[in-house]
Amino acid sequence: MDKLIFGIIGMGRIGKIHAENLLRLPQVELKAVADLYADKSLQDWASARGISTVTRDSADLLGDPDIQAVFICSLTDSHVPLIVQAAQAGKHIFCEKPISLDREQTQIALAAVQEAGVSLQIGFNRRFDHNFRCLQERIKEGAVGDLHLIKITSRDPSPPHEEYIGKSGGIFIDMTIHDFDMARFLADCDVEEVYAQGAVLVDPVFAKYGDVDTAVVTLKFANGALGVIDNSRKAAYGYDQRVEAFGSLGSISVQNDYPNTLEISTAEGVMRDKPLHFFLERYNEAYILETKQFAQSLLAGSEVPVNGQDGLQAELMALAARWSLKLGRPVKLSELDMLEAEQEAVKL
Amino acid sequence: MDKLIFGIIGMGRIGKIHAENLLRLPQVELKAVADLYADKSLQDWASARGISTVTRDSADLLGDPDIQAVFICSLTDSHVPLIVQAAQAGKHIFCEKPISLDREQTQIALAAVQEAGVSLQIGFNRRFDHNFRCLQERIKEGAVGDLHLIKITSRDPSPPHEEYIGKSGGIFIDMTIHDFDMARFLADCDVEEVYAQGAVLVDPVFAKYGDVDTAVVTLKFANGALGVIDNSRKAAYGYDQRVEAFGSLGSISVQNDYPNTLEISTAEGVMRDKPLHFFLERYNEAYILETKQFAQSLLAGSEVPVNGQDGLQAELMALAARWSLKLGRPVKLSELDMLEAEQEAVKL
Amino acid sequence: MDKLIFGIIGMGRIGKIHAENLLRLPQVELKAVADLYADKSLQDWASARGISTVTRDSADLLGDPDIQAVFICSLTDSHVPLIVQAAQAGKHIFCEKPISLDREQTQIALAAVQEAGVSLQIGFNRRFDHNFRCLQERIKEGAVGDLHLIKITSRDPSPPHEEYIGKSGGIFIDMTIHDFDMARFLADCDVEEVYAQGAVLVDPVFAKYGDVDTAVVTLKFANGALGVIDNSRKAAYGYDQRVEAFGSLGSISVQNDYPNTLEISTAEGVMRDKPLHFFLERYNEAYILETKQFAQSLLAGSEVPVNGQDGLQAELMALAARWSLKLGRPVKLSELDMLEAEQEAVKL
Amino acid sequence: MDKLIFGIIGMGRIGKIHAENLLRLPQVELKAVADLYADKSLQDWASARGISTVTRDSADLLGDPDIQAVFICSLTDSHVPLIVQAAQAGKHIFCEKPISLDREQTQIALAAVQEAGVSLQIGFNRRFDHNFRCLQERIKEGAVGDLHLIKITSRDPSPPHEEYIGKSGGIFIDMTIHDFDMARFLADCDVEEVYAQGAVLVDPVFAKYGDVDTAVVTLKFANGALGVIDNSRKAAYGYDQRVEAFGSLGSISVQNDYPNTLEISTAEGVMRDKPLHFFLERYNEAYILETKQFAQSLLAGSEVPVNGQDGLQAELMALAARWSLKLGRPVKLSELDMLEAEQEAVKL
Repeated sequence: MDKLIFGIIGMGRIGKIHAENLLRLPQVELKAVADLYADKSLQDWASARGISTVTRDSADLLGDPDIQAVFICSLTDSHVPLIVQAAQAGKHIFCEKPISLDREQTQIALAAVQEAGVSLQIGFNRRFDHNFRCLQERIKEGAVGDLHLIKITSRDPSPPHEEYIGKSGGIFIDMTIHDFDMARFLADCDVEEVYAQGAVLVDPVFAKYGDVDTAVVTLKFANGALGVIDNSRKAAYGYDQRVEAFGSLGSISVQNDYPNTLEISTAEGVMRDKPLHFFLERYNEAYILETKQFAQSLLAGSEVPVNGQDGLQAELMALAARWSLKLGRPVKLSELDMLEAEQEAVKL
Repeated sequence: MDKLIFGIIGMGRIGKIHAENLLRLPQVELKAVADLYADKSLQDWASARGISTVTRDSADLLGDPDIQAVFICSLTDSHVPLIVQAAQAGKHIFCEKPISLDREQTQIALAAVQEAGVSLQIGFNRRFDHNFRCLQERIKEGAVGDLHLIKITSRDPSPPHEEYIGKSGGIFIDMTIHDFDMARFLADCDVEEVYAQGAVLVDPVFAKYGDVDTAVVTLKFANGALGVIDNSRKAAYGYDQRVEAFGSLGSISVQNDYPNTLEISTAEGVMRDKPLHFFLERYNEAYILETKQFAQSLLAGSEVPVNGQDGLQAELMALAARWSLKLGRPVKLSELDMLEAEQEAVKL
Repeated sequence: MDKLIFGIIGMGRIGKIHAENLLRLPQVELKAVADLYADKSLQDWASARGISTVTRDSADLLGDPDIQAVFICSLTDSHVPLIVQAAQAGKHIFCEKPISLDREQTQIALAAVQEAGVSLQIGFNRRFDHNFRCLQERIKEGAVGDLHLIKITSRDPSPPHEEYIGKSGGIFIDMTIHDFDMARFLADCDVEEVYAQGAVLVDPVFAKYGDVDTAVVTLKFANGALGVIDNSRKAAYGYDQRVEAFGSLGSISVQNDYPNTLEISTAEGVMRDKPLHFFLERYNEAYILETKQFAQSLLAGSEVPVNGQDGLQAELMALAARWSLKLGRPVKLSELDMLEAEQEAVKL
Repeated sequence: MDKLIFGIIGMGRIGKIHAENLLRLPQVELKAVADLYADKSLQDWASARGISTVTRDSADLLGDPDIQAVFICSLTDSHVPLIVQAAQAGKHIFCEKPISLDREQTQIALAAVQEAGVSLQIGFNRRFDHNFRCLQERIKEGAVGDLHLIKITSRDPSPPHEEYIGKSGGIFIDMTIHDFDMARFLADCDVEEVYAQGAVLVDPVFAKYGDVDTAVVTLKFANGALGVIDNSRKAAYGYDQRVEAFGSLGSISVQNDYPNTLEISTAEGVMRDKPLHFFLERYNEAYILETKQFAQSLLAGSEVPVNGQDGLQAELMALAARWSLKLGRPVKLSELDMLEAEQEAVKL
């Protein structure tokens, strides 16, 4: 393959980011964008970038035989049907996380992908961050020996709007899912058991939706190592994304990125700026790189760097965390079948 | 009171540290030291410091009417009987942690102390560390608003000898107990529930004694805040003692202390020294301060800064952690009665 | 003006960087590039970017009435004639530093610019760096009160090739000139006197050309503040660019940028990566911003952010430093006329 | 020698610090203290520490045949006569810096010391600081290869009282002298030439005494390396003592010490405490160590770690700096004879 033609479904903030990043790549053309609410403004935006097709109907885009690959950046509940349709249309797929809020649905999507023999990359952008990539490489090279513990801190600068909270699927599948993926990525190992503690400390609105805004999740990896993630929906000082990996030879960590290295010493103390505000600032380069590596994998016919199984495993961890919080006990990923079956039985 | 006369029971490493620190204090005399293995060498050591009495029998020391206060620095299993005897002899008591490995025993000691109306301070030296004291003061002043999460990292540079492991009571009561106390100290609140994960990753010898060498313990405070502690018996880079407190207004943390601020930049990278090696280096000033504040409290007739209840609460947390690890589920401190009763029942 | 058409003269490394950065800007077209050695490869490079004209003769470019502004990125000795020609052709000019190695020549260029009424921006890219911009803003806002001292460390990762050294004009006009501009930029004040110490410690080749590779330059600002710059042609750990400003209310500093925040603690010590390697990595964003602000100034008809006077002042400082090193004493900028006249007299 | 008996002359702040530190040492007795203003309060202070003799007349102390070594902590103008008397009395001497404000006087003192065959240690306490000692050791081990540059920042938290300023001998001999010694200590090499810039920016009172409060001093070492020192009499954030050494293999630096490692991140930014306030806090351990090493050298009959030549060299640098500031040009240490002779000639 020496040229790739792309389409994007869902032109919200993240769709536009992927569009801009695709437009920078050689050997890549962005031919079409689809959005349920496409209007004059989107039309103008697309024209200014040489994108020829703008449609409200994703079927137009999926039906275009020129288009070889699609980005699915629409709302979560549309991911599975769009993956299935795109796979059936023979398109390679980049899908934002999570694949779905329901593991049966996710498995339907993965099956369609497998049957069609197309590639599916999941939007775990943090794997492409300069700090986390380095961290993973050094761990893999053995910088800290055998891994004993992975610690992830992940806090947002402020909670989402209430309407978003209700549809988010809860903190674990909406927010912690990135950390679950990071844990697996760094440990290079699946997780067997999850224990989640949570509390509503930031805003009572979370309780209204049976959700929490503060959480500590502990993990047991298949290789015996431990993990712990702490989350908050609101860190007053901004986006907080730090990781430490501890092993037999020592510890390796990455800190936040800062907008500058300025330090002011006065009679009050020593002051520096807060970390980069949020994910668009912090992971700007990571978004560029994930798009580039997706395109490069397709051009080279090689495996994508984050695949459907990665998406599924992180979802299973999120579901186990949700059960754990509900049941007040650790939950093994292997229990999910039974727990869901029991739940169904109760409903009947 | 304008002068205090002290005795010390148990003249191992920590007994000698307390002795040296007492000797620096004005208004204080160290009159006697007792040790089961007192010999010529201890005699010489004491003479050089103007300590008049050296005995193998702690009863000699406790029977001396001049002595107003004692340090109990002997092995853990002697703490309770010595506290009881010292209290009955009307001595004020400084006892190393833990009071005992058994909460009934601990309560017997506390009851004796209360009945005798003497003061009891527990050797939670970290409360007196320059970093942790500052941290606690700033939290109390409201620097981070309402507390949401306390995170404690506590790792030793290397595991103790095997004979020690067998008698230690396990990682939670031997090592994590300091972190349990730190959590309570910083949060200014008791803990209601504990969940402990553990693994044997450092040395298989721990498994032999039903112990673990790596642990992650999550906490629920009575006020709804969460806590998490991670421990390891071996950090290749030395003693690792860091704390972060996160709240509604931000985050506050203390890092390790380093032997110097040297930084070398070469073609290989940027290098600095490892943290201070172990507790004697790291908490040197804290040991001095805890001794000083104990003496000052007695001289002033005021409350000691870490009392028997603090000792008991940390023990209860350690016991709950042990049960949690055994049962594979979170354990409330209020369940301890029942769990111990069941255990007794099984034994019968 | 709502669209700007550009040409670039000199298509070496820096010419191409400006080209790429111009191509990203809205309202900007890059129509032509000129290079004495233009070949098929440059032709291809230009075609791939939609640049319609490639020529070996800068006169073609300067004679094109469509072109409103030019970048002069050719060798230093061509700067003055090209500035004069461009000014006479009515083009706005962006010229790389230094304008020339001779202040009379520089003044000829500035006069031509003034007469033609065009804009001239000098390529002091560091003014646009995220750290230094912030630093300058905070100083201006009064963060450290009245300025007492500016300290600049500026070290290259490795010396240039010998042929470059011979033609460079010496360390002060080639390398320190950036620091001279930075000093004026931060202090918002001209410099009156310079004292330069230098040594050949990195490579004896510098001595061959009457140059030094290590220098310490002290400055007296017109407002009474002091300054000090230290330079080296070779820092084993990479590009070292740090600044501190000290004043009546405290100190403000910026450190190097690092490729990541990774820190590894092992039995050997604590290690992190070296700073970003060299100016292309460190000042990547600064190059983009200087180009953008140049274009924006032209579009808005406003003053450019670094003008010909800024170029001249930094050159005068460099010339004074050269004299100071030669004479072994501090030299005032106001002495330059006399010193040059004496030198001429000696030659006659 | 297995026991050392000491006396101290001059019981101001620094005399008392040395007394307390001597009292901690084994094999050491502090028998007598002398102070021109000795009173009841000093008498009580001495009694509480078991110091048997308190006198107003230093001759009493120097005449006591038991006393083997003395600390001279009196005003600078008494140093030389006291050194001469002490040497003639056969006492080993620890003298605070500077030996005198006049190099002929200093040489008289050194000659007396040499003739008497006693030891003389100068109070350059910073050589004993944990950071600077490490720094010197690493440089000596070759951590940065051949030395190219030494950079020293040394700023006080606030200027001395006016009466002190008038008698201080000026900033170079009063304050910079420590940095001159540090430069020689780290470079392990003498300095040949000094250039000093200075300004009155902190307080106009300094101008009244022909002194400056802000200075930048550049150095040329005999081995060709360069040095630069910056001083201020007032750093709003406290005591600022940092050093960097740069060489062929890289850079090594030490930063300030801080009272704690606390860091608070809030919506305002990231804040930590100011450095340790002043020399008593910062160099507390260094004072202990210099006293200890002085006593150990005497007990072992070995060379003291900072001798009279070290005192003299730092003074010569200070005098050269004063001449440089006056003459507005660099001054070689070898010019001092001539400059002083000319000055004398003018006076005649």
